[in-house]
Amino acid sequence: MQLLQQTIEKIVCLDQKIAAEARERVDHLIKPAKSLGRLEDLAVQLAGITRNLKPVFDQKAIIVMAADHGVYEEGVTSNPQEVTVGQTLNFAKGITGVCAIGQVSGARIVPVDIGIKVEMPSDVGIIIRKVKNGTDNMAKGPAMTREEAIKAIEVGIEIANEEIKKGVQILGTGEMGIGNTTPSTAILSVLLRCDPLGITGRGAGLGKGGLEHKAEVIRRAIHINEPNPDDVIDVLEKVGGLEIGGMAGVMLGAAANRIPVVVDGFISTIAAIIAVGIEPKTKDYLVTSHASQEPGAKLASELLGLEPMLMMNMCLGEGSGAALAFPIIEAACSILKNMPTFAEIGMEI
Amino acid sequence: MQLLQQTIEKIVCLDQKIAAEARERVDHLIKPAKSLGRLEDLAVQLAGITRNLKPVFDQKAIIVMAADHGVYEEGVTSNPQEVTVGQTLNFAKGITGVCAIGQVSGARIVPVDIGIKVEMPSDVGIIIRKVKNGTDNMAKGPAMTREEAIKAIEVGIEIANEEIKKGVQILGTGEMGIGNTTPSTAILSVLLRCDPLGITGRGAGLGKGGLEHKAEVIRRAIHINEPNPDDVIDVLEKVGGLEIGGMAGVMLGAAANRIPVVVDGFISTIAAIIAVGIEPKTKDYLVTSHASQEPGAKLASELLGLEPMLMMNMCLGEGSGAALAFPIIEAACSILKNMPTFAEIGMEI
Repeated sequence: MQLLQQTIEKIVCLDQKIAAEARERVDHLIKPAKSLGRLEDLAVQLAGITRNLKPVFDQKAIIVMAADHGVYEEGVTSNPQEVTVGQTLNFAKGITGVCAIGQVSGARIVPVDIGIKVEMPSDVGIIIRKVKNGTDNMAKGPAMTREEAIKAIEVGIEIANEEIKKGVQILGTGEMGIGNTTPSTAILSVLLRCDPLGITGRGAGLGKGGLEHKAEVIRRAIHINEPNPDDVIDVLEKVGGLEIGGMAGVMLGAAANRIPVVVDGFISTIAAIIAVGIEPKTKDYLVTSHASQEPGAKLASELLGLEPMLMMNMCLGEGSGAALAFPIIEAACSILKNMPTFAEIGMEI
Repeated sequence: MQLLQQTIEKIVCLDQKIAAEARERVDHLIKPAKSLGRLEDLAVQLAGITRNLKPVFDQKAIIVMAADHGVYEEGVTSNPQEVTVGQTLNFAKGITGVCAIGQVSGARIVPVDIGIKVEMPSDVGIIIRKVKNGTDNMAKGPAMTREEAIKAIEVGIEIANEEIKKGVQILGTGEMGIGNTTPSTAILSVLLRCDPLGITGRGAGLGKGGLEHKAEVIRRAIHINEPNPDDVIDVLEKVGGLEIGGMAGVMLGAAANRIPVVVDGFISTIAAIIAVGIEPKTKDYLVTSHASQEPGAKLASELLGLEPMLMMNMCLGEGSGAALAFPIIEAACSILKNMPTFAEIGMEI
């Protein structure tokens, strides 16, 4: 709890002076005012985050939090639970979707075992920070204790701190955890105070019970645990996941270090809602990426208040959408660095 | 006309065999089926275009067609016509928006004077292929002759051929021409057989007459010239622009050489509609990019049948949105190149 508290206290708003200077500059670059749209807003945000009118993000990393879910035993997905293990090993080998997309912008992939059910090898490039061996089945009781939820967030903060200490200038968030659209949808359902059925999707593959069964499991988990929608840590504890807590921690850690952090799709957006629920100023450090195909994703983005930039119909997770947003961020930096103002080139308009 | 005819005859459909092989591979990569969404479709298209299961696009260029518009004298924009000259010089200096964004993926910017009103220096890196010194005022008569319209298209084909000969593996299209949302909207209005008012936007800045005046100028141009909606060259000739013809030519030239070509925003999409109107198989070679803020853009994309990938609220033109799409295309190539199939790693799912 101490690390979480210290981290929250370090998070401050964007540097308004630098952001205003960046806006002034962007407004006068050699183009019609506002014609680069959201790229201009992004440039201003990045300047305000880094306190630098010409921010540079040469060192990029995507932290992929991997964990298992006790609710898997309710048949909420058609994928074998072992896929969490297999894909986490594949992150370390650099061969998954996020690895391939991350290569385009030179992003390093950092896989973290924050709660996989089985023991993982410690010598293959996976960072082992297991909070517990998978969550408990939320359809029968809380997914974890409050201490474990906070520990998961703190693991995320620690990993972010470590990466930033190594020189990383921008972070992305990703996850791997068979069944994790179920807790994500449960969290959204609690926070929106709505029945899960309308926001429940197929995730990476649905169990034989189908959508109605998955929604019923979520409904039961909420009914049994009675999470408090005004306390996001309580919601995370009762119907969440360890990787969701870990990603929220990465976002808090990034914000405390004045480092931008790219949100991925549905599950990452849920983690962002948790992080912003813990400390609202975290939002200033978040950069949006793609619109996930998962039905809850649009509502989650609206709840968070960030509109996606990429419409790719993707739903892989892993941080794959975040990886695809890195070049857009570099483009925003490039307009600050490589375009002059009309005044600078003596051009009148 | 000979070059256009020869080029049309060279355009064939995607290689269906290679495309099917790429789809088969993409379907079995180590991820849930379809979870990379449009990135998968793009990978299949690029393989089908290049006849290569692992396409590579190291050499990229964005051809920026620059021209002036006789209809400028009707007060359809608030920007001085001289900006066409100034920004075209700035492309050659590498300092405009598309140059800054293009740098992120190493795209070369190729500015072409296809019809600027005044003479341009021939020694600064601008390719001079003037068809005429700006179009005539379409509100008083045809913007150009049929011969000039075909010549503009052929200039585009020639430039594409020359770039491809130099080793370019993927092209983007961009434009510069103060007032060019007016002919673009006129073309769309003719093809959609609708009144221009509902689809007329502010472009890079609107003249004091406002939207209604701009729409009235377009209405008059259509009324006087009676372009034939079933003959896109007739439409281009009567209410089009030289840079629009040039971009259509670049697309036809790319398709004839089995090279993918990235469509930019509103004006580029109109050029794509012309190119596809001339030879429908050209569409197989087009890659979409961003959704322009210009009101006609959405309808133009729907008419073309390509849904944008990027929602950036941009409306700069120049090929800036196309430049932003290049890294997405590289990501699509990277999944083909860097992800194994489940079978290849002996993983069952």
